[in-house]
Amino acid sequence: MSGFDLRSEPGADCRIGERATFDASVRWGHNVTLGDDAHIGPGATLYDNVEIGAGTWIGPGCSIGEPTMAFYRDRAAYEGARTRIGASSILRRGTVVNAGTTIGARFQTGPYAAIREETRIGDNCSVGNNCDIQYGVEIGSFTRLHTNVAVGSGTRIGPYVWVHPFVVFTNDRAFPTFLKQEPPVIAPFCSIAVHSTILPGARLGVHTIVGAHTKVGGYVPAYAFMDGSPAENRIDCRKILHKLGGRVVTPYPWIHHVGRDYPWADQPAEKRRIEEWLPDEWREFL
Amino acid sequence: MSGFDLRSEPGADCRIGERATFDASVRWGHNVTLGDDAHIGPGATLYDNVEIGAGTWIGPGCSIGEPTMAFYRDRAAYEGARTRIGASSILRRGTVVNAGTTIGARFQTGPYAAIREETRIGDNCSVGNNCDIQYGVEIGSFTRLHTNVAVGSGTRIGPYVWVHPFVVFTNDRAFPTFLKQEPPVIAPFCSIAVHSTILPGARLGVHTIVGAHTKVGGYVPAYAFMDGSPAENRIDCRKILHKLGGRVVTPYPWIHHVGRDYPWADQPAEKRRIEEWLPDEWREFL
Amino acid sequence: MSGFDLRSEPGADCRIGERATFDASVRWGHNVTLGDDAHIGPGATLYDNVEIGAGTWIGPGCSIGEPTMAFYRDRAAYEGARTRIGASSILRRGTVVNAGTTIGARFQTGPYAAIREETRIGDNCSVGNNCDIQYGVEIGSFTRLHTNVAVGSGTRIGPYVWVHPFVVFTNDRAFPTFLKQEPPVIAPFCSIAVHSTILPGARLGVHTIVGAHTKVGGYVPAYAFMDGSPAENRIDCRKILHKLGGRVVTPYPWIHHVGRDYPWADQPAEKRRIEEWLPDEWREFL
Repeated sequence: MSGFDLRSEPGADCRIGERATFDASVRWGHNVTLGDDAHIGPGATLYDNVEIGAGTWIGPGCSIGEPTMAFYRDRAAYEGARTRIGASSILRRGTVVNAGTTIGARFQTGPYAAIREETRIGDNCSVGNNCDIQYGVEIGSFTRLHTNVAVGSGTRIGPYVWVHPFVVFTNDRAFPTFLKQEPPVIAPFCSIAVHSTILPGARLGVHTIVGAHTKVGGYVPAYAFMDGSPAENRIDCRKILHKLGGRVVTPYPWIHHVGRDYPWADQPAEKRRIEEWLPDEWREFL
Repeated sequence: MSGFDLRSEPGADCRIGERATFDASVRWGHNVTLGDDAHIGPGATLYDNVEIGAGTWIGPGCSIGEPTMAFYRDRAAYEGARTRIGASSILRRGTVVNAGTTIGARFQTGPYAAIREETRIGDNCSVGNNCDIQYGVEIGSFTRLHTNVAVGSGTRIGPYVWVHPFVVFTNDRAFPTFLKQEPPVIAPFCSIAVHSTILPGARLGVHTIVGAHTKVGGYVPAYAFMDGSPAENRIDCRKILHKLGGRVVTPYPWIHHVGRDYPWADQPAEKRRIEEWLPDEWREFL
Repeated sequence: MSGFDLRSEPGADCRIGERATFDASVRWGHNVTLGDDAHIGPGATLYDNVEIGAGTWIGPGCSIGEPTMAFYRDRAAYEGARTRIGASSILRRGTVVNAGTTIGARFQTGPYAAIREETRIGDNCSVGNNCDIQYGVEIGSFTRLHTNVAVGSGTRIGPYVWVHPFVVFTNDRAFPTFLKQEPPVIAPFCSIAVHSTILPGARLGVHTIVGAHTKVGGYVPAYAFMDGSPAENRIDCRKILHKLGGRVVTPYPWIHHVGRDYPWADQPAEKRRIEEWLPDEWREFL
């Protein structure tokens, strides 16, 4: 790709699915594939080797398969890596996905989310407004990032994780030298409140709850409730009680209270067990 | 609306005011109304049932009346709720306003601000770059949100409030369960410094000052100066003194020092009284 | 400029360099100059009196020379100040640069960075996704701002500075009165970690290291390691030791470990001296 030759119509090397629609202002690279019923909004740019899943809606002004730094270093030699957006997804206005990233089905973004190259995101994930996901990040299925989450390169986040607004995942212990680059690892079922910083080398156990405005690092055991800056392990979160309309409730584990759109939706709330839904690769984080 | 049928020119169901102008690349839904002297920039999308006030300037790449989740769930059944932007407003590049939101006159945004559905914003407000205002938020007149403010759904902010960059308003006490959803309430004349978190259930009295990097919740009395994480009530802000060029000044209440563009602009500074400008519905927050 | 008369092709008053390319959807003000080999992407708007350097790549949806408030106050009288983007730069999707700002060569932005008027940025700088640089800011060469950095108006940042995500530079001691506006001054070689607030009046000495989640103000001596909220001077950062693969390393001064793309790249790591690269105007910050 030269970048100059983004075309104003899909070329013969593009495959457009049945009933797929696109605005006349879309710009097209080479070898772009649109699934059936996909839609591409005004002003979007689809670069080389992009695959858009069936029924996926790409909003106005999105860039998919955005060229990486290698393009600017040597345009003639650059070959855009394959970029895949799964089926039944919704990418809102201005979402940018760099070349070489793979995202699963039923994905959603808020406006202006940006996801860099060589990142893998599972199915049923969402990434909020203005999020910045760096390169080489791994995010499991059913994980939700709210507004303005920044994920440093190499971070590994399991499935079923909630990340609230303005959380930052860092990766360089001796910033800015990158002598000790240690991206954090976040086990499934964690929930991290707003404005928290996850320090380099942090390893959060299964279903860690992190309070707002918290700076947390190191090895955190499963079910800890971490709070403060620097964070302290205040309590096993399963012991936290809330009063609710005269009743006492235990909000954690949260899967007892949250089911919609999750694979355990049809189980009775009190019968849901985290162990049942924990992928084997994450068992050591229990 | 099918979303597919955004049109490249305003249809017969649209009303274009006198001297209103728009770029040829604008895309049009149905029943769009432009007031006299309005202007719509290149690449903007105006969805169904949008009303743009007289003299209002919609910058390049804005989406007004952006479809809500209901659209993606069932396109055939979706009907975009009426979206109104008041007169003499300036919406800068890439601002997104979802369907069903109503905004008053003389509104301003920074680039890439996003405002979701069922939100009401008064007159003379501003919302800075990249702000994320969720659904069902209420913001009074003459309130200013700086860069990157995130306002959780259901938050109620009075008139004459200042919110500085990176402030987050949260609403879920037992996150992520939403068992106890308690959006904060911010009384008129508050000023909240950068990087602060307003916790679920917070109720800030009239003219509360919140310091930078503060985590504040609960019931805060009028004129408190809250600082720290967790916040403490340090002093009645009216007792705060600053030295300024050899003089001692009391910066609070701030209306003694800030008048331009406010309704009290013509009153002598020392004669301005907060009680005089406090709407009745907020008197209990004194 | 009337803003209405952005043109769909460059007029006779524009100069287009050799081999410069642009998408047909670009909108053009008056007196725009493109250097040789420059490229302007789809949906970009170039307002009056913009100069784009040779080999510079302006991504889709950028606004360069964006009108300032004066335009909206009186369109007839408005004259867009000259805006310059240096050679061999890369501005990614949606970058906004206001009229009257001057930026050096080899500049880079992430998507949706916004830079206001009357700001000066040196050579070899980068500004990450969603950054908000206000008016009248000065940034020295080889300084890097990561994602979502907010720089208050009047801030002065030296060369060779690293600013990590979500750092905010504030400037109003008695917010929101602007009675005591004291923008911070950041000396060369500082490195500021994520989620930190730089308070009004802060003066950071050469090679200050600021930890994550730190609130720092006042006069900070050279080589301090500041941490906490409020910050304390914990140690001379040159005494910080890290274990690395069995070896003990001293990460600071960081120029011993970071050379690529810096002017000292060809010096042996251990022979690099900060004093040698410190501009005279910053010597008093040692």
